[in-house]
Amino acid sequence: MSDMAGGEEAAADGSAARWGRRAWELLERVRARAPLVQCITNFVSMDLMANALLAAGASPAMVHSLCEIDDFTPRADALCVNLGTLSDGWLPSMRAAVAAAARSSRPWILDPVAVSASEFRMEACLGLVALWPTVIRGNPSEIIALSSACRVRDSKGVDSFHESPDAVESAKSLAQSSGAIVAVSGATDFITDGQIVVAAQNGVAMMQKITATGCAVTALIAAFVAVEPSNPLEATSCALSIFGLAGELGMEMANGPASLRVHMIDSLHGLHEHTVASRVKISLVS
Amino acid sequence: MSDMAGGEEAAADGSAARWGRRAWELLERVRARAPLVQCITNFVSMDLMANALLAAGASPAMVHSLCEIDDFTPRADALCVNLGTLSDGWLPSMRAAVAAAARSSRPWILDPVAVSASEFRMEACLGLVALWPTVIRGNPSEIIALSSACRVRDSKGVDSFHESPDAVESAKSLAQSSGAIVAVSGATDFITDGQIVVAAQNGVAMMQKITATGCAVTALIAAFVAVEPSNPLEATSCALSIFGLAGELGMEMANGPASLRVHMIDSLHGLHEHTVASRVKISLVS
Amino acid sequence: MSDMAGGEEAAADGSAARWGRRAWELLERVRARAPLVQCITNFVSMDLMANALLAAGASPAMVHSLCEIDDFTPRADALCVNLGTLSDGWLPSMRAAVAAAARSSRPWILDPVAVSASEFRMEACLGLVALWPTVIRGNPSEIIALSSACRVRDSKGVDSFHESPDAVESAKSLAQSSGAIVAVSGATDFITDGQIVVAAQNGVAMMQKITATGCAVTALIAAFVAVEPSNPLEATSCALSIFGLAGELGMEMANGPASLRVHMIDSLHGLHEHTVASRVKISLVS
Repeated sequence: MSDMAGGEEAAADGSAARWGRRAWELLERVRARAPLVQCITNFVSMDLMANALLAAGASPAMVHSLCEIDDFTPRADALCVNLGTLSDGWLPSMRAAVAAAARSSRPWILDPVAVSASEFRMEACLGLVALWPTVIRGNPSEIIALSSACRVRDSKGVDSFHESPDAVESAKSLAQSSGAIVAVSGATDFITDGQIVVAAQNGVAMMQKITATGCAVTALIAAFVAVEPSNPLEATSCALSIFGLAGELGMEMANGPASLRVHMIDSLHGLHEHTVASRVKISLVS
Repeated sequence: MSDMAGGEEAAADGSAARWGRRAWELLERVRARAPLVQCITNFVSMDLMANALLAAGASPAMVHSLCEIDDFTPRADALCVNLGTLSDGWLPSMRAAVAAAARSSRPWILDPVAVSASEFRMEACLGLVALWPTVIRGNPSEIIALSSACRVRDSKGVDSFHESPDAVESAKSLAQSSGAIVAVSGATDFITDGQIVVAAQNGVAMMQKITATGCAVTALIAAFVAVEPSNPLEATSCALSIFGLAGELGMEMANGPASLRVHMIDSLHGLHEHTVASRVKISLVS
Repeated sequence: MSDMAGGEEAAADGSAARWGRRAWELLERVRARAPLVQCITNFVSMDLMANALLAAGASPAMVHSLCEIDDFTPRADALCVNLGTLSDGWLPSMRAAVAAAARSSRPWILDPVAVSASEFRMEACLGLVALWPTVIRGNPSEIIALSSACRVRDSKGVDSFHESPDAVESAKSLAQSSGAIVAVSGATDFITDGQIVVAAQNGVAMMQKITATGCAVTALIAAFVAVEPSNPLEATSCALSIFGLAGELGMEMANGPASLRVHMIDSLHGLHEHTVASRVKISLVS
């Protein structure tokens, strides 16, 4: 398929122009297909996540009851599992939804929000990582903590080790042990399959002053992977860059974090080909 | 009462001007009485629903614990039950609240969000429909699915049948079987008691790109029916038109769905008599 | 410490200028230290509360699972417990978090949202009041109801009494019986330790048309008390005034409650020293 070839070229030569065209192509596909993205997510993020998916052209569905998983999840094009405001009552739903997505060969994305908040959350997260997520996206602290915990577990918890010097190495290690694409959000986002590392450099610092922006971009990744399941590395990179670009455009009109939130979602909804093609900043790091 | 007479006239002659005056009259009544609207609703919608009720002059109360129903529901002027993010733990509260509202002769409104998402949700919804909701509001897919399921149930599930050619026929059928006023939201909203069909034509397409606008307008219907319980057909029609009008006014200032959400709520709060009287588009279809 | 001395002077002479400097000093401290504020709060408020904390420079954490309290709460700098959308499943978490905060000598703040909604909620609230909250903040109805209930309980429920003529007297009584600083929000906010009464007069009436503004300011109080635990009376007064000032600044750009919400959070994020110092209106009442 031409788009796959385009994608591979993009990854191969790292040309910004090719990545721009690739990001636009995937955004157009999301708008055309309106993938149904099931979100099992925290209470704080539901509003922004649903609105970000709608603005991008996807169809959000916040469905978390165990009573509905078997009927609903097979119809979803992708599943987004988010550990914020986790409680033990939700874990069976998360596991059942992941299993249902796997049976239907649908991608699922894991957001290990505040994975170090408690032993309970880390254990829950490690259990989910073992179920083969397509993509894991977190901030540097989350990815470093999760990657470390995976290594401890692999080594039966008796080895001593030091944390890797930076989140990129942790991300590569986590990608290798989990089989997932791992994305680390930050001033620059890094995306890796354990070998290749891609950098996405769109976004503005003030986005961190809006609650749930990380959760929202994880949902956007799910929408992009839903329309390009065979290349989650590129889909993830493009989703991160598109969301960051929406933040950049929103920032041009914002006076603070609340107006940025408004203008960011408006901008995501209104993105034009020229803007995406010329302003997406993705490159191959290694 | 003069307002009742006005209402009947409005329904009878379908004059846009009469409907405009009727909508303004009911909005003023909401502002004056600030009806207390209890909402048992999904997590995604709580923020927008509460803010829409406040902007219209009503008083929202998100109370869903079974421990509070007996004390609280009798004090509410209307009850809004919404099936989004349904879980089995909430069903007893919904049923208890409906029973308490019935004992207090208070109207209650049902929003069958995504009723086809699962067998569980459909069963839950059918159980609630059997408890005599005053109004049911949904989108065309929801009303068609629910209406069909009611007919299957009435016929003991053995009949084969085809879906009615459009949601209006489904709405009429559902109204007849449930005893409720049924409203179908869309580019044009249709409201029916099973005989009369009223059309409300305010609104803009981009409202569908904001999560929970449907949920919010259902809560607004609850507020309007609370102040005009003897004529839920007209109250529902006016609430739908008023909310759509707020969207039209908001759209004049919006650059996308997130700014539309802001300006829509601002506009709902600031509606003037002249605007309502001249721009409400309600008419009698049949 | 110079700031403590400044604070005492502020309380002692009631000079507006001193209070302005004090409020700025505490806001700067929140920005510099980014206190981690754990919120166990209602579903409606989570978004605004998290965004208000972020805008002020604090770090919000919505963590309510009993499985996480023992690990997480000792790391938080303050705890905010809010009774909106209360259900019985959350009470053990609230009690455990309060106990953990007490063991770690961290302040905790109680928001008795709609405490009169049910016997269940009042009982839950009285149980929490007995656990020595650092601050209790509510609207006049909530404080009057809670204060009355405490007096009934103290007198074994057999005394008859009349409600105090205004919420200030109720607040003083509640402060005396609970040992907490009690704040009553309104056109003027009153803050008392049971003896001294301070008035904070910033804010605009339209803030009441935005859901969860009360919840959000309670969380802001938690952030301020976290950085000034030895003087919760002043920290509470300054937080209330700062939030009200953000509302005043936001109102200059707002067209209604939804745009006020946006501009209020933007303004909270962008507050400058001169604005705070010159516009904070706090004074000693008695």
